[in-house]
Amino acid sequence: MVRIAVDAMGGDYAPREVVHGAILAAKEFGVSVLLVGNPDAVNAELKRHPQEGLNIEVVPATEVVGMDEKPSRAVLKKKDSSIVVATRLVAQGRADGVVAAGSTGAAAVAAQLELGRIANVDRSAIACMMPTITASKPCVMVDCGANVDCTPQMLFQFGLMGSILCEGLLNYENPRVGILNLGTEETKGTELVKQAYKLLKASSKLNFIGFVEGRDFPMSKVDVVVTDGFTGNVALKTAEGIARMISVALKQELLSSLRTKIGGQIAEPAFQALKNRIDYNESGGALLIGVKGVYVIAHGGSKHTAIKNAIRAARDLVNADVVKKIESILANGTTGSTP
Amino acid sequence: MVRIAVDAMGGDYAPREVVHGAILAAKEFGVSVLLVGNPDAVNAELKRHPQEGLNIEVVPATEVVGMDEKPSRAVLKKKDSSIVVATRLVAQGRADGVVAAGSTGAAAVAAQLELGRIANVDRSAIACMMPTITASKPCVMVDCGANVDCTPQMLFQFGLMGSILCEGLLNYENPRVGILNLGTEETKGTELVKQAYKLLKASSKLNFIGFVEGRDFPMSKVDVVVTDGFTGNVALKTAEGIARMISVALKQELLSSLRTKIGGQIAEPAFQALKNRIDYNESGGALLIGVKGVYVIAHGGSKHTAIKNAIRAARDLVNADVVKKIESILANGTTGSTP
Repeated sequence: MVRIAVDAMGGDYAPREVVHGAILAAKEFGVSVLLVGNPDAVNAELKRHPQEGLNIEVVPATEVVGMDEKPSRAVLKKKDSSIVVATRLVAQGRADGVVAAGSTGAAAVAAQLELGRIANVDRSAIACMMPTITASKPCVMVDCGANVDCTPQMLFQFGLMGSILCEGLLNYENPRVGILNLGTEETKGTELVKQAYKLLKASSKLNFIGFVEGRDFPMSKVDVVVTDGFTGNVALKTAEGIARMISVALKQELLSSLRTKIGGQIAEPAFQALKNRIDYNESGGALLIGVKGVYVIAHGGSKHTAIKNAIRAARDLVNADVVKKIESILANGTTGSTP
Repeated sequence: MVRIAVDAMGGDYAPREVVHGAILAAKEFGVSVLLVGNPDAVNAELKRHPQEGLNIEVVPATEVVGMDEKPSRAVLKKKDSSIVVATRLVAQGRADGVVAAGSTGAAAVAAQLELGRIANVDRSAIACMMPTITASKPCVMVDCGANVDCTPQMLFQFGLMGSILCEGLLNYENPRVGILNLGTEETKGTELVKQAYKLLKASSKLNFIGFVEGRDFPMSKVDVVVTDGFTGNVALKTAEGIARMISVALKQELLSSLRTKIGGQIAEPAFQALKNRIDYNESGGALLIGVKGVYVIAHGGSKHTAIKNAIRAARDLVNADVVKKIESILANGTTGSTP
């Protein structure tokens, strides 16, 4: 039975929605959940739900890292915070993976501190699932914000890790890996992407398709988008912002006349289906990769469904043995040369 | 009367749609249009439309720069190409601005060659109008792809030029200028954006609001988005790609059941209005700024409406005296110090 440690105090709706999501996950996926946080607060929430036959344990943690705190300082100071204790459970072998909602920075620092990086990984990174035109076939973008400055070597490792993640989490066979650039021609782009291109192209370990543009990933032309954390974060947030803008504008237009109001009400199931397809909150969150453990970071605004999905993602990553696979593919060095 | 030189041979639907758009512009906006290209081909298209009372002149050019040619080489070699001749008309004072559909690279090289840069502008840049949640209130993003590597000084100049452009083209008062970053805190980001932040903050010439994120510009939280050409291009194309993805997914969902089909048909005017609000092809194209002349680059796939809109944008930029204003604001150097 897969054991997932959940930071019960993290996120805008903690502990209520986190505990609720954890119970749903224990029920639906048969995982064992360790809820880490203030025992009184967590138990009060647990009482609201029937838990017969579920594997749920409360692990006490006396402190909480707030969203407004500087991650590195807060995590280093608060050794008994819920995020640190949850992460430590994996380091101690008491859990197989962590789910935390809220501060990506705090999660990254806690993971670095308690789990450490996989050998030959220069830096851990944030991978995000991005909705695409192909329903329930997202693409993976790495890095979405952990590393502002990157080396070609790091991008190469992002490609390898992203590919393994994509296979393990999404079950894609031979996922197509591309580097985000401002054009698809080999001669275009920064020195960083040109050098990374050479490394990825020289590797026989993955299905490298070359440079891709910002309009390619939404149209399902690539499965793993490799990029530095600055560009990746801009792309991710632009995608979120445009999706939000269109959703609001669509509502405005549907309410603009009696005719469109009526049509809109009849067609409502289509809008609901569309919302589910492009909703960034429901996708199971971001993944911290390159550390010695499965680490899922749910959106700060996660409600129970998002928490449940994040726990499922953690379970899938544990079952796919993603951490061991990354260790093994990087074991013979991080150069682009074939083994 | 404002005189616009139009590359009649540029774009996927040239010369037919270009000539058609030029005639519409001459009629609707009372501008004088100089159609540059193969006289036989252009005249054949002109014959298809009544032109009484319109100011339309055909200026011969014997060559064409193709979309598949390397811009710098092609432009330097083909001195009598339509794009070069159209640009030269502005240099010679025979036209006030240029409209060209197609290769942004070729346009940038032609502009550099025939017009040159405004004094104290380090590099010309591409400015794009990006749809936002506020209908008919786009924001301006600079640079959208001309400069892969940028200095803080260049970003500072993009901010100044973008602000003037925004006032002149969109009539925004005191436009809010922000630098695109992966967070809004002053301590976040690359050295490039941190240094540019200092320069823009120190300037009294514009309304600098600090760092903005990818999700801010679609939600109308900023009017001028300053960024390097690599990041800007990724943001622009991601926005286009996500808009396209959602539009296709919406259609799929509306066609997925009889109920949603019927509702969709009734609500059709709302979808048309939405399409017009988020259509990147209808926005008048990109602008090349920093060169000594008004330069509008329409989408390669422009049909007559897009060409017409591009000509209107060129006219507005001429009328607003944008080039002189940029010259004057940069006249006392390009440092962030107040005058």
